[in-house]
Amino acid sequence: MPSLPIPTPRLFTFVGDTTGPWRVERAHCLAGDPLPAASRVSIVAGFIAQLPQGATWSLRGITSNERYVEQTEKAALVSKQQGLGRPTATRAALIPIRKKAAWWALPQDARREIFEARSRHIEIGLRYLPAVARRLHHCRDLGVDEPFDFLTWFEYAPGDAAAFEELLAALRSSAEWKYVDREMDIRLARATP
Amino acid sequence: MPSLPIPTPRLFTFVGDTTGPWRVERAHCLAGDPLPAASRVSIVAGFIAQLPQGATWSLRGITSNERYVEQTEKAALVSKQQGLGRPTATRAALIPIRKKAAWWALPQDARREIFEARSRHIEIGLRYLPAVARRLHHCRDLGVDEPFDFLTWFEYAPGDAAAFEELLAALRSSAEWKYVDREMDIRLARATP
Repeated sequence: MPSLPIPTPRLFTFVGDTTGPWRVERAHCLAGDPLPAASRVSIVAGFIAQLPQGATWSLRGITSNERYVEQTEKAALVSKQQGLGRPTATRAALIPIRKKAAWWALPQDARREIFEARSRHIEIGLRYLPAVARRLHHCRDLGVDEPFDFLTWFEYAPGDAAAFEELLAALRSSAEWKYVDREMDIRLARATP
Repeated sequence: MPSLPIPTPRLFTFVGDTTGPWRVERAHCLAGDPLPAASRVSIVAGFIAQLPQGATWSLRGITSNERYVEQTEKAALVSKQQGLGRPTATRAALIPIRKKAAWWALPQDARREIFEARSRHIEIGLRYLPAVARRLHHCRDLGVDEPFDFLTWFEYAPGDAAAFEELLAALRSSAEWKYVDREMDIRLARATP
């Protein structure tokens, strides 16, 4: 019998605020409407009922099962990846994206084909493990008014910043990214107390 | 260019109540904890903030993209299926299920393999189209406290009741159903005014 996964928090809210452990170094909008400016970002377990005083935005997502990753890929990912919160990983990125309705109307095999066979999404991610740790949050099925479909949170050491840029450039030039119609890119550094 | 889908409501709440357009003919629990008894069921577009007076339960779900259906299967489904609300379809079933954590921990290809190659889930459904119309609602990613993972709503004419029993029996004897750890089966008839 495979052992069951230990329950972990699945709901997270990212808050664009004036306080918080991550300092915004730069933020830009690649497609669609931008988010309002914020100087800090916090990550809260669970959802929040209302924005804290001074905060300008919040985005919520839920970690879920994999939608495209296959057995051998999962084994490769699990063997190479490291968790969030490594003391050396003092740089982070929050990249919220939304995909066009045409993407969601595709059947599973067509989405998988674009995702991996044509875009090499998993292979690209694997190439930068364990340097770049990531956690993917799904938003689309939380409700019908979510501003993005996915929030991806990345953490890496300053020395791996160039590798992270490569990873993003590879994904953004892929066939899959032609379906992205809203994208923000927020870069952060761990705030020193 | 494929045409984009017309936006339709995606969120639905099923309410076990004392009033409503569907009369409960029988309800039984096949696995896990049962739902409280109710004499009628309503289907509300959207979510509800609180239970109506006299109601005993509510279950909410969101329609979403397909997770396992492939291109040729989707074409076959679309060509054969009919919508909900046919005047002759005066019988319905609401079948909420939850799957074990072990299911969700499987990679995509292992879930697809159990779903279709071993369990013939899509083929079984196709066999009973257009007689049995269905709508699948996802609950799992609405939050972490949802009591079920899926709510499936079926509608059929009284003359197709035996075919519907066959469909359910085929699914319940499949490899996929070994992962189901909570299941209710609520049978309904359209209430005459």
